[in-house]
Amino acid sequence: MKHKSLAQETCPISRGLNVIGEWWTLLIVREAFYGVTKFADFQSKLGIAKNILAARLKQLVKDGILQLDNKGGKRSQYVLTEKGRDLIYVLLAISQWASKWLFTSGRPSLHTVDKQDLLEIAPLEVRSRNGRILGSNDIEFLHEDKRSSKNQSTD
Amino acid sequence: MKHKSLAQETCPISRGLNVIGEWWTLLIVREAFYGVTKFADFQSKLGIAKNILAARLKQLVKDGILQLDNKGGKRSQYVLTEKGRDLIYVLLAISQWASKWLFTSGRPSLHTVDKQDLLEIAPLEVRSRNGRILGSNDIEFLHEDKRSSKNQSTD
Repeated sequence: MKHKSLAQETCPISRGLNVIGEWWTLLIVREAFYGVTKFADFQSKLGIAKNILAARLKQLVKDGILQLDNKGGKRSQYVLTEKGRDLIYVLLAISQWASKWLFTSGRPSLHTVDKQDLLEIAPLEVRSRNGRILGSNDIEFLHEDKRSSKNQSTD
Repeated sequence: MKHKSLAQETCPISRGLNVIGEWWTLLIVREAFYGVTKFADFQSKLGIAKNILAARLKQLVKDGILQLDNKGGKRSQYVLTEKGRDLIYVLLAISQWASKWLFTSGRPSLHTVDKQDLLEIAPLEVRSRNGRILGSNDIEFLHEDKRSSKNQSTD
Protein backbone atom coordinates (compact mmCIF):
# COMPACT_ATOMS: atom_id res chain seq x y z
CA MET A 1 0.00 0.00 0.00
CA LYS A 2 1.34 3.40 -0.98
CA HIS A 3 0.78 6.06 1.64
CA LYS A 4 0.32 9.73 1.03
CA SER A 5 3.43 11.51 2.25
CA LEU A 6 3.32 12.96 5.72
CA ALA A 7 6.63 14.77 5.35
CA GLN A 8 5.09 18.22 5.55
CA GLU A 9 2.55 17.53 8.31
CA THR A 10 3.00 19.73 11.35
CA CYS A 11 2.24 16.86 13.74
CA PRO A 12 5.62 15.43 14.73
CA ILE A 13 4.13 11.95 15.13
CA SER A 14 2.96 12.00 11.50
CA ARG A 15 6.23 13.39 10.29
CA GLY A 16 8.18 10.87 12.34
CA LEU A 17 6.16 7.92 11.09
CA ASN A 18 6.76 9.07 7.55
CA VAL A 19 10.44 8.33 8.10
CA ILE A 20 10.46 5.49 10.58
CA GLY A 21 6.91 4.09 10.52
CA GLU A 22 7.80 1.08 8.55
CA TRP A 23 8.46 -2.24 10.01
CA TRP A 24 11.78 -3.05 8.32
CA THR A 25 13.20 0.39 8.93
CA LEU A 26 13.19 0.04 12.69
CA LEU A 27 14.38 -3.56 12.56
CA ILE A 28 17.36 -2.47 10.44
CA VAL A 29 18.06 0.27 12.98
CA ARG A 30 17.84 -2.31 15.78
CA GLU A 31 20.46 -4.46 14.03
CA ALA A 32 22.68 -1.40 13.62
CA PHE A 33 22.46 -0.91 17.41
CA TYR A 34 23.53 -4.53 17.83
CA GLY A 35 26.63 -3.60 15.82
CA VAL A 36 25.72 -4.92 12.37
CA THR A 37 27.28 -2.83 9.59
CA LYS A 38 27.43 -4.96 6.43
CA PHE A 39 24.75 -5.60 3.85
CA ALA A 40 25.19 -9.37 4.02
CA ASP A 41 24.92 -9.37 7.80
CA PHE A 42 21.74 -7.27 7.81
CA GLN A 43 20.37 -9.71 5.28
CA SER A 44 21.15 -12.86 7.20
CA LYS A 45 20.06 -11.45 10.57
CA LEU A 46 16.75 -10.16 9.28
CA GLY A 47 15.94 -12.73 6.61
CA ILE A 48 14.88 -9.88 4.35
CA ALA A 49 14.85 -9.93 0.54
CA LYS A 50 17.91 -8.28 -1.02
CA ASN A 51 15.92 -5.79 -3.07
CA ILE A 52 13.86 -4.65 -0.09
CA LEU A 53 16.96 -4.36 2.10
CA ALA A 54 18.82 -2.38 -0.57
CA ALA A 55 15.90 0.03 -0.93
CA ARG A 56 15.54 0.49 2.83
CA LEU A 57 19.25 1.05 3.41
CA LYS A 58 19.36 3.58 0.58
CA GLN A 59 16.42 5.42 2.11
CA LEU A 60 17.97 5.32 5.59
CA VAL A 61 21.15 6.89 4.21
CA LYS A 62 19.10 9.49 2.34
CA ASP A 63 17.20 10.29 5.53
CA GLY A 64 20.46 10.73 7.43
CA ILE A 65 19.84 7.86 9.85
CA LEU A 66 22.68 5.67 8.57
CA GLN A 67 25.85 6.80 6.88
CA LEU A 68 27.96 4.91 4.43
CA ASP A 69 31.52 4.36 5.46
CA ASN A 70 33.68 2.72 2.82
CA LYS A 71 37.11 3.99 3.50
CA GLY A 72 40.09 1.71 3.24
CA GLY A 73 38.82 -0.21 0.25
CA LYS A 74 36.70 -2.51 2.38
CA ARG A 75 33.09 -3.22 1.61
CA SER A 76 30.59 -0.53 2.49
CA GLN A 77 29.66 -0.31 6.11
CA TYR A 78 26.46 1.23 7.36
CA VAL A 79 26.84 3.14 10.60
CA LEU A 80 24.28 5.01 12.67
CA THR A 81 24.50 8.80 12.60
CA GLU A 82 23.65 10.91 15.64
CA LYS A 83 20.12 11.26 14.24
CA GLY A 84 20.02 7.48 13.95
CA ARG A 85 21.35 6.87 17.45
CA ASP A 86 18.66 9.14 18.81
CA LEU A 87 16.11 6.56 17.65
CA ILE A 88 17.14 4.45 20.61
CA TYR A 89 14.42 6.15 22.63
CA VAL A 90 11.81 5.03 20.10
CA LEU A 91 13.12 1.46 20.12
CA LEU A 92 13.29 1.50 23.90
CA ALA A 93 9.70 2.69 24.18
CA ILE A 94 8.50 -0.05 21.81
CA SER A 95 10.58 -2.66 23.59
CA GLN A 96 9.35 -1.60 27.01
CA TRP A 97 5.71 -1.60 25.93
CA ALA A 98 5.98 -4.97 24.22
CA SER A 99 7.90 -6.55 27.10
CA LYS A 100 5.12 -5.49 29.45
CA TRP A 101 2.11 -6.39 27.33
CA LEU A 102 3.05 -9.01 24.76
CA PHE A 103 4.97 -11.57 26.77
CA THR A 104 2.31 -13.59 28.54
CA SER A 105 4.62 -16.46 27.79
CA GLY A 106 8.34 -16.49 27.04
CA ARG A 107 10.96 -13.93 27.89
CA PRO A 108 12.17 -10.93 25.90
CA SER A 109 15.52 -11.61 24.22
CA LEU A 110 16.64 -8.00 24.23
CA HIS A 111 18.35 -6.33 27.14
CA THR A 112 18.97 -2.63 27.23
CA VAL A 113 21.99 -1.99 29.34
CA ASP A 114 24.18 0.78 30.63
CA LYS A 115 27.45 0.45 28.70
CA GLN A 116 29.41 1.16 31.85
CA ASP A 117 28.29 -1.80 33.93
CA LEU A 118 26.14 -3.86 31.52
CA LEU A 119 23.26 -3.61 33.96
CA GLU A 120 19.72 -3.34 32.65
CA ILE A 121 18.58 0.27 32.60
CA ALA A 122 15.54 1.61 34.40
CA PRO A 123 12.27 2.04 32.47
CA LEU A 124 11.77 5.22 30.46
CA GLU A 125 10.36 7.97 32.54
CA VAL A 126 8.27 11.00 31.85
CA ARG A 127 8.53 13.87 34.24
CA SER A 128 6.76 17.16 34.65
CA ARG A 129 8.81 20.34 34.45
CA ASN A 130 9.16 20.29 38.22
CA GLY A 131 10.39 16.71 38.28
CA ARG A 132 7.24 14.78 39.25
CA ILE A 133 7.10 11.36 37.57
CA LEU A 134 4.04 11.23 35.32
CA GLY A 135 2.02 8.11 34.54
CA SER A 136 0.21 7.65 31.24
CA ASN A 137 -2.96 9.06 32.84
CA ASP A 138 -1.22 12.28 33.85
CA ILE A 139 -0.23 13.21 30.32
CA GLU A 140 -2.33 14.83 27.64
CA PHE A 141 -1.75 15.52 23.98
CA LEU A 142 -2.87 18.97 22.93
CA HIS A 143 -3.06 20.14 19.38
CA GLU A 144 -1.61 23.59 18.74
CA ASP A 145 -5.11 25.07 18.09
CA LYS A 146 -6.68 23.59 21.19
CA ARG A 147 -3.83 24.71 23.34
CA SER A 148 -4.32 28.32 22.27
CA SER A 149 -8.04 28.15 23.06
CA LYS A 150 -7.41 26.48 26.42
CA ASN A 151 -4.87 29.12 27.31
CA GLN A 152 -7.24 31.87 26.27
CA SER A 153 -10.12 30.43 28.25
CA THR A 154 -8.04 30.48 31.42
CA ASP A 155 -6.82 34.03 30.92
CA MET B 1 3.21 -5.87 1.25
CA LYS B 2 2.30 -8.73 3.53
CA HIS B 3 4.78 -9.29 6.33
CA LYS B 4 5.60 -12.58 7.97
CA SER B 5 4.18 -12.50 11.47
CA LEU B 6 6.52 -11.49 14.24
CA ALA B 7 4.07 -12.37 17.01
CA GLN B 8 6.19 -15.19 18.40
CA GLU B 9 9.60 -13.53 18.09
CA THR B 10 11.43 -13.21 21.38
CA CYS B 11 12.74 -9.76 20.52
CA PRO B 12 10.27 -7.33 22.08
CA ILE B 13 10.90 -4.77 19.33
CA SER B 14 9.84 -7.29 16.69
CA ARG B 15 6.85 -8.37 18.69
CA GLY B 16 5.86 -4.78 19.36
CA LEU B 17 6.15 -3.76 15.73
CA ASN B 18 3.96 -6.69 14.81
CA VAL B 19 1.13 -4.99 16.70
CA ILE B 20 1.86 -1.30 16.34
CA GLY B 21 4.36 -1.07 13.49
CA GLU B 22 1.90 0.19 11.01
CA TRP B 23 1.47 3.75 10.15
CA TRP B 24 -2.31 4.04 10.54
CA THR B 25 -2.34 2.13 13.79
CA LEU B 26 -0.32 4.72 15.67
CA LEU B 27 -2.14 7.62 14.04
CA ILE B 28 -5.47 6.14 15.19
CA VAL B 29 -4.02 5.79 18.69
CA ARG B 30 -2.84 9.42 18.52
CA GLU B 31 -6.40 10.54 17.68
CA ALA B 32 -7.72 8.47 20.58
CA PHE B 33 -5.34 10.38 22.87
CA TYR B 34 -6.75 13.60 21.45
CA GLY B 35 -10.16 12.36 22.63
CA VAL B 36 -11.63 11.02 19.39
CA THR B 37 -13.98 8.07 20.01
CA LYS B 38 -16.32 7.78 17.01
CA PHE B 39 -15.75 6.06 13.70
CA ALA B 40 -16.86 9.12 11.71
CA ASP B 41 -14.51 11.37 13.66
CA PHE B 42 -11.50 9.09 13.19
CA GLN B 43 -12.35 9.08 9.52
CA SER B 44 -12.62 12.82 9.09
CA LYS B 45 -9.55 13.59 11.23
CA LEU B 46 -7.32 11.09 9.46
CA GLY B 47 -8.74 11.22 5.93
CA ILE B 48 -8.53 7.45 5.85
CA ALA B 49 -10.62 5.12 3.67
CA LYS B 50 -13.57 3.58 5.54
CA ASN B 51 -12.58 -0.01 4.82
CA ILE B 52 -9.01 0.52 6.03
CA LEU B 53 -10.20 2.32 9.15
CA ALA B 54 -12.76 -0.41 9.92
CA ALA B 55 -10.09 -3.10 9.59
CA ARG B 56 -7.60 -1.20 11.75
CA LEU B 57 -10.13 -0.44 14.50
CA LYS B 58 -11.23 -4.06 14.55
CA GLN B 59 -7.62 -5.16 14.90
CA LEU B 60 -6.93 -2.60 17.64
CA VAL B 61 -9.91 -3.93 19.61
CA LYS B 62 -8.74 -7.50 19.03
CA ASP B 63 -5.25 -6.55 20.24
CA GLY B 64 -6.72 -5.00 23.40
CA ILE B 65 -5.50 -1.48 22.61
CA LEU B 66 -8.97 0.01 22.13
CA GLN B 67 -12.19 -1.18 23.66
CA LEU B 68 -15.68 -0.81 22.31
CA ASP B 69 -18.05 1.04 24.51
CA ASN B 70 -21.62 1.12 23.23
CA LYS B 71 -23.71 1.34 26.33
CA GLY B 72 -26.77 3.56 26.43
CA GLY B 73 -27.82 2.85 22.87
CA LYS B 74 -25.46 5.44 21.45
CA ARG B 75 -23.17 4.69 18.58
CA SER B 76 -20.05 2.67 19.32
CA GLN B 77 -17.25 4.53 20.97
CA TYR B 78 -13.65 3.45 20.83
CA VAL B 79 -11.74 4.10 24.02
CA LEU B 80 -8.11 3.38 24.90
CA THR B 81 -7.48 0.53 27.32
CA GLU B 82 -4.64 0.63 29.83
CA LYS B 83 -2.52 -1.28 27.31
CA GLY B 84 -3.44 1.38 24.76
CA ARG B 85 -2.69 4.30 27.08
CA ASP B 86 0.72 2.82 27.74
CA LEU B 87 1.55 3.48 24.08
CA ILE B 88 1.89 7.14 25.00
CA TYR B 89 5.58 6.51 25.66
CA VAL B 90 6.02 5.23 22.11
CA LEU B 91 4.17 8.22 20.65
CA LEU B 92 6.18 10.55 22.86
CA ALA B 93 9.47 9.03 21.75
CA ILE B 94 8.50 9.37 18.08
CA SER B 95 7.25 12.91 18.62
CA GLN B 96 10.38 13.92 20.48
CA TRP B 97 12.69 12.46 17.85
CA ALA B 98 10.77 14.02 14.98
CA SER B 99 10.49 17.42 16.67
CA LYS B 100 14.25 17.44 17.09
CA TRP B 101 15.29 16.16 13.68
CA LEU B 102 12.52 16.77 11.16
CA PHE B 103 11.53 20.37 11.75
CA THR B 104 14.20 22.40 10.02
CA SER B 105 11.29 24.63 9.11
CA GLY B 106 7.90 25.01 10.77
CA ARG B 107 6.84 24.17 14.27
CA PRO B 108 5.41 20.93 15.69
CA SER B 109 1.65 21.15 16.19
CA LEU B 110 1.56 18.69 19.05
CA HIS B 111 2.17 19.58 22.66
CA THR B 112 2.55 16.98 25.33
CA VAL B 113 1.44 18.47 28.58
CA ASP B 114 1.01 17.66 32.23
CA LYS B 115 -2.78 17.43 32.77
CA GLN B 116 -2.44 19.27 36.06
CA ASP B 117 -1.01 22.53 34.76
CA LEU B 118 -1.09 22.13 30.95
CA LEU B 119 2.63 22.82 30.86
CA GLU B 120 4.80 21.02 28.34
CA ILE B 121 6.49 18.02 29.89
CA ALA B 122 10.22 17.45 30.04
CA PRO B 123 11.85 15.21 27.41
CA LEU B 124 11.83 11.45 27.94
CA GLU B 125 14.75 10.34 30.03
CA VAL B 126 16.69 7.16 30.35
CA ARG B 127 18.45 6.53 33.60
CA SER B 128 20.81 3.91 34.87
CA ARG B 129 19.75 1.83 37.85
CA ASN B 130 21.52 4.27 40.13
CA GLY B 131 19.81 7.31 38.63
CA ARG B 132 22.45 8.65 36.21
CA ILE B 133 20.87 10.17 33.10
CA LEU B 134 22.04 8.21 30.07
CA GLY B 135 22.54 9.63 26.58
CA SER B 136 22.07 7.55 23.46
CA ASN B 137 25.80 6.77 23.47
CA ASP B 138 25.68 5.34 26.97
CA ILE B 139 23.13 2.68 26.13
CA GLU B 140 23.69 -0.66 24.48
CA PHE B 141 21.35 -3.31 23.19
CA LEU B 142 22.40 -6.82 24.14
CA HIS B 143 20.83 -9.93 22.75
CA GLU B 144 20.06 -12.61 25.32
CA ASP B 145 22.83 -14.88 23.96
CA LYS B 146 25.48 -12.19 23.91
CA ARG B 147 24.63 -11.08 27.39
CA SER B 148 25.22 -14.55 28.78
CA SER B 149 28.60 -14.75 27.08
CA LYS B 150 29.59 -11.23 28.23
CA ASN B 151 28.59 -12.06 31.77
CA GLN B 152 30.55 -15.29 31.67
CA SER B 153 33.62 -13.58 30.29
CA THR B 154 33.65 -11.15 33.20
CA ASP B 155 33.16 -13.85 35.81
